[in-house]
Amino acid sequence: MLYLVGLGLADEKDVTVRGLEIIKNAERVYLESYTAVLLVEKEVLESFYGREVIIADREMVESSSDDILADADKVDVAFLVVGDPYGFVLPPTLHTYTERSTNSEPKLMDGRATTHTDLVLRARELSIPTRSIPNASILTSIGTTGLQLYNFGQTVSMVFFLDNWKPASFYDRIAENVKIGLHTLVLLDIKVKEQSLENMARGRKIYEPPRYMSVAQCAQQMIEVEEEIKQEGVYGRESLAVGVARVGSENEKIVAGTLEELCEADLGAPLHSLVLLGRRTHDLERDFLLEFAVDREKFRSVWARDYEGKQ
Amino acid sequence: MLYLVGLGLADEKDVTVRGLEIIKNAERVYLESYTAVLLVEKEVLESFYGREVIIADREMVESSSDDILADADKVDVAFLVVGDPYGFVLPPTLHTYTERSTNSEPKLMDGRATTHTDLVLRARELSIPTRSIPNASILTSIGTTGLQLYNFGQTVSMVFFLDNWKPASFYDRIAENVKIGLHTLVLLDIKVKEQSLENMARGRKIYEPPRYMSVAQCAQQMIEVEEEIKQEGVYGRESLAVGVARVGSENEKIVAGTLEELCEADLGAPLHSLVLLGRRTHDLERDFLLEFAVDREKFRSVWARDYEGKQ
Repeated sequence: MLYLVGLGLADEKDVTVRGLEIIKNAERVYLESYTAVLLVEKEVLESFYGREVIIADREMVESSSDDILADADKVDVAFLVVGDPYGFVLPPTLHTYTERSTNSEPKLMDGRATTHTDLVLRARELSIPTRSIPNASILTSIGTTGLQLYNFGQTVSMVFFLDNWKPASFYDRIAENVKIGLHTLVLLDIKVKEQSLENMARGRKIYEPPRYMSVAQCAQQMIEVEEEIKQEGVYGRESLAVGVARVGSENEKIVAGTLEELCEADLGAPLHSLVLLGRRTHDLERDFLLEFAVDREKFRSVWARDYEGKQ
Repeated sequence: MLYLVGLGLADEKDVTVRGLEIIKNAERVYLESYTAVLLVEKEVLESFYGREVIIADREMVESSSDDILADADKVDVAFLVVGDPYGFVLPPTLHTYTERSTNSEPKLMDGRATTHTDLVLRARELSIPTRSIPNASILTSIGTTGLQLYNFGQTVSMVFFLDNWKPASFYDRIAENVKIGLHTLVLLDIKVKEQSLENMARGRKIYEPPRYMSVAQCAQQMIEVEEEIKQEGVYGRESLAVGVARVGSENEKIVAGTLEELCEADLGAPLHSLVLLGRRTHDLERDFLLEFAVDREKFRSVWARDYEGKQ
C-alpha cells in the first residue's frame, strides 16, 4: 500500500495518531520536501518517529517515482506531505528560473497537487493500492483569523517577482472573487533547493539558501501589480487584508490592516499567508479581527466605509 | 486555556498527537455534537482518551458557554470539534422547524462557524487564552477525488427540503462559481437531536432519530431547484458531479457521474458530500475520476463535450 500521510502545519506532533502508526510500520518513509516545509527539521521527525526519513525532492518524485513505489504492492510505503496530502500549503516551486526566462505565466497545474495525483495514478497503473491520511491545511486553518470559510472564493498563489518577470494571473482570479464579494487566500512562494542560473547552466548542484515570501512582500507585490501593471481597481492601498504566520503553531501570529499597512508588517519567521477581504462580511469577522489590527481605528473606519453591510 | 481541538473526519485515531496530549491533560473535555459527527460513538472516544467526554449540544454551547469556560483562566479545557475547529464539516443544524416555518432562507452565519467564533470571543472577554489545534476538514480532504483545490469556488450547504420550505440560496452561489468555471463543494445537512414540531410545541424533550442527507437526495434536490424553481440553466441533468462518503476513512467511497446518475447512487453510510464540477478542469482530474465513474463511456463523452479545454 502507498500511504500519503498529511503531517499538518507546524511540527512533529501535528501528525495524526493513525498517520504516526502508519509511519512507524511502513517499510520506507519519504518526506516530500519541495512544496512546503514544517517548522522543524528532518532530524526532529526522525527522532520522533524512531525511523529514517528519506527526503524526496522534486526530481525524485517526478523522475524516480517507480523507486518510491518499488514493492509497494507487497509492503507499505509512507509518503509524507506537509499539510494535507491533497491540499496545497504553498504555491508550487516548479517555476524555476529556466521556466521563468520564457516569461510565461506560472503553470500551477504542474505544481504540487498534480505531483501527488501523478504519484497515485502511477500507483494505480502498477496495481498498488493507495490511501490518503488527511490532515490540516492552510486552506481551512486560515479560519483561525475568524474569517468564515464559506466566504472564501478560489485560492491563488503569489510567486517571487523578478525584474523582468512579474506574473499577474493571480490578479484576474482575485478580480473574480472580489466581484462576487468573496475573500481570497493568497499562498506565498517558497524557494527550496533552487539553483542560480549560473550554477544551473554549469550543471553544478549548488543550491541557494531557502527563501520564504513574507506577508509584507506579498502586499507590496499586490500593490505593484494594481498600480503599475493592471490598474483595474480590483483592490487598493486601503483594501483590508489579514496576514498570518506559523498557523497552527504555538507562536502563530495574525495581523490585520490595509494592504498599505501590511507592506510594513513584520510577522517574523515563515511560513506566511495573506487573505484579501471581500466585501461580503459579517460583523463577527470584524469583531474577531479587531484584536489583530495594526491600527484599530483605521481598521474600524475602513470596514465601516467599504465592507459593512455590503453584499 | 481553552483549546479548540480538531478531531479530523473518521474515527478516534484521526486526532493529532498534540491534540491527544491536550485531551489527556485537560481538566474537562467537551465534544461539540450538533454540527458534525465522527463515524464512531462517544464511548469509543472515551475509551481511547481514557477520559470522560461531556457532550456539548447546541443548547449548551449557545446558552451555557460560561459553564464550558468556567475556570479556564486557571485550568485547561478542551473543546473537541469534528473536522477542523474553524472549518465546517457539515451545514449548520440551526434551521429548526420553528425557524423554517417562517419560510426564510437558512442563516448560515448562525451556524457552526459562528458558534465557535462566539465561544472564542466570549473567552477573550473573560481573559481566557485560546488555542486552536487544526485538523483535516472536508474542505481540503475533498481533494481525495483528484479534483484540484484551487479550482474550487465558494462552498455551499444543502438542507433537507420540506414540502413548503425549499431554500434555494445555494443555487445563486453555485451560479457564481459556474460563471467563472469553478467547482462547488456542497455540504449536506444532518439532523441530530431535533424535535418534531409537536414535541417542540408541547415542550417535550423527545428527539427524532438522527438523519443524514445522502448524495442521491442532494442531487435530486439540486435538479428539483433547477427544473421547478429557478430554471436559469446553471446546471442540468447531464452536469458532472462527484459524490463522496466517509472521506478519510478506510471505506471511503467516491462516485462520479452526471447529476441524474447520482440521483440513483447509493454510497452507503454517512457522511456524504457532493461536488458539482466547473468547466475549468484539467485532464488529470478526468483521468483520476474515471475510475469512479458510474458509466465511464458516458462520463468521458460528457466531459469531452462540456468540460474539456473550456476555461
